[in-house]
Amino acid sequence: MRSQLRIFFAFVLALAAGLAFGTRALAGADPLPSWNDGAAKRAILELVRATTNKSSPELVPPEQRIATFDNDGTLWPSHPMYTQLAFALDRIKALASQHPEWKTKEPFKAALDNDLEALAAAGEKGLVELVMASHAGMSTDEFEAIVTDWLKTARHPRFKRRYTELAYQPMLELLAYLRANGFKTYIVSGGGIEFMRPMTEAVYGVPPEQVIGSSIETKYEMKDGKPVLMRLPKIDFIDDKAGKPVGINKFIGRRPIAAFGNSAGDRQMLEWTGAGSGARLMMLVLHDDAEREYAYGPANGLPDTKFGIFPESLMEEADKKGWVVISMKKDWARIFAFEE
Amino acid sequence: MRSQLRIFFAFVLALAAGLAFGTRALAGADPLPSWNDGAAKRAILELVRATTNKSSPELVPPEQRIATFDNDGTLWPSHPMYTQLAFALDRIKALASQHPEWKTKEPFKAALDNDLEALAAAGEKGLVELVMASHAGMSTDEFEAIVTDWLKTARHPRFKRRYTELAYQPMLELLAYLRANGFKTYIVSGGGIEFMRPMTEAVYGVPPEQVIGSSIETKYEMKDGKPVLMRLPKIDFIDDKAGKPVGINKFIGRRPIAAFGNSAGDRQMLEWTGAGSGARLMMLVLHDDAEREYAYGPANGLPDTKFGIFPESLMEEADKKGWVVISMKKDWARIFAFEE
Repeated sequence: MRSQLRIFFAFVLALAAGLAFGTRALAGADPLPSWNDGAAKRAILELVRATTNKSSPELVPPEQRIATFDNDGTLWPSHPMYTQLAFALDRIKALASQHPEWKTKEPFKAALDNDLEALAAAGEKGLVELVMASHAGMSTDEFEAIVTDWLKTARHPRFKRRYTELAYQPMLELLAYLRANGFKTYIVSGGGIEFMRPMTEAVYGVPPEQVIGSSIETKYEMKDGKPVLMRLPKIDFIDDKAGKPVGINKFIGRRPIAAFGNSAGDRQMLEWTGAGSGARLMMLVLHDDAEREYAYGPANGLPDTKFGIFPESLMEEADKKGWVVISMKKDWARIFAFEE
Repeated sequence: MRSQLRIFFAFVLALAAGLAFGTRALAGADPLPSWNDGAAKRAILELVRATTNKSSPELVPPEQRIATFDNDGTLWPSHPMYTQLAFALDRIKALASQHPEWKTKEPFKAALDNDLEALAAAGEKGLVELVMASHAGMSTDEFEAIVTDWLKTARHPRFKRRYTELAYQPMLELLAYLRANGFKTYIVSGGGIEFMRPMTEAVYGVPPEQVIGSSIETKYEMKDGKPVLMRLPKIDFIDDKAGKPVGINKFIGRRPIAAFGNSAGDRQMLEWTGAGSGARLMMLVLHDDAEREYAYGPANGLPDTKFGIFPESLMEEADKKGWVVISMKKDWARIFAFEE
């Protein structure tokens, strides 16, 4: 009787262990819980299967598993304006007392007045002037401290949350899923490399050495007997459009297997990625959810935008080349971690 | 009796296993077998202890363990000339039939005549002209194939071996030892980034994304319907002297914990590394072994060199700042893997 009881208990324990294991396996079976079932989610799972399954004819050695992600509009919002532009405008305001001439001089007047129309009219030249006035003239250490402070206090005008809380939950899951399968995840953004680096590790799990972006020149100098890198008001590199493959080649020296973007600025990165041989995945996030985030651009039949344009020609290229368009509305069960 | 025999055999087996384990442990106890005991070797072991021992007050999280290595003269020879210059001269010869004007035009004439004096007289401007003529005008893929082919066939004039066989064995052990302790090892060289990348992974265990070097501009273009990056005859970045901290900040975005060089071109990299807080290691390889490799430069009381100058002022700075000078003659038991 006692030994029968023992066998019974052993059986129960084994069953419980089996159930626990099964539950864990089931929980582990969906690495992308914020993605609805559909073509986008299936394409991701299929890329990972094809490149990591040991019996797959398209198996890729781990060191060649490179995935590149645009930032603005792909990993976090780019509306109502690029986060870095919001930072630049705040910096201009903070520095205005030292520059009384800005009150009457464009594009600074527009920045101080929050006049987005006038800022847009100032064009690229005006934006560069704003960036130079707000991003240069200090050491790299000082700039990092300024950005870090700003990210702690600044709030998104619509969501009333820190910008770092606005990382898209489905993309965080995708980044983690790719890394769990041996991929190195890179950010390849038109945004400033030193504007992004202070937050990418904590927010996206992407270390500074895997962040590629636009940059201004720096100069090595001795200051009070200590070496510093001073940020100069001179463009070094624009990591956008045809600059993205250039930046990828310069920083990584390998062609990505997967690339993720959301706008015309990502077109060449996706072309470059797609031109390699073997399994590939190119995806574009479409902003079509005005309720939970934003909807804009001709691909939605909506007016154009200055911050992350997705023109019809990009949709045509995507169709032609088999790039997968992610509908935020349909493909994402949840957009932000803070949602109910 | 039988059980006593069994116990005896079990004891012998345990002893043998113990001996085998002990021998392995002893073998594992010297991760740097090609380094003679001395201050240089002790400094390396001490840095690793200080930054990785869990009870060390200077423990460094793995993601911050960055070590940077110059290439020419630090990881492989830079004499009788930089390997990349040997490559450029061979390329100029290979292309000469398409450029009859080179027969009478400097610096090409000097290159075709192997006239190192005249090449030196052509100065930096002349060298840049040679590099542009030999390194630009093709796609990045084509250039990689050209470099890979050259490395397979070219031989060092003194050692009669492939250049990739000339990696210094003690430095290979150092790279592997640091990586085994969680360090990311980077190459930060004045040499061309795309000249080094085809061989760094196989030779040094350093993947392309951890190679920083000088570069020429590239341009994204469509060629026969496929995207290519064309190499332009225009300097993009010179990763030497004050350019090394700039390159480190641009590519890595973190300050190294350890830096290794051999010449005035590495001074600022060592300064920048040494200016961080916590445990640090800055080392300079001194070429003082004419018998096994080369001996040159004023720090040896020998004539100056064009390829890796180690001036007296660098030795003074090393003394003052506690940078460790590695004597190839005294600190290295073996220089090349192919030595007896």
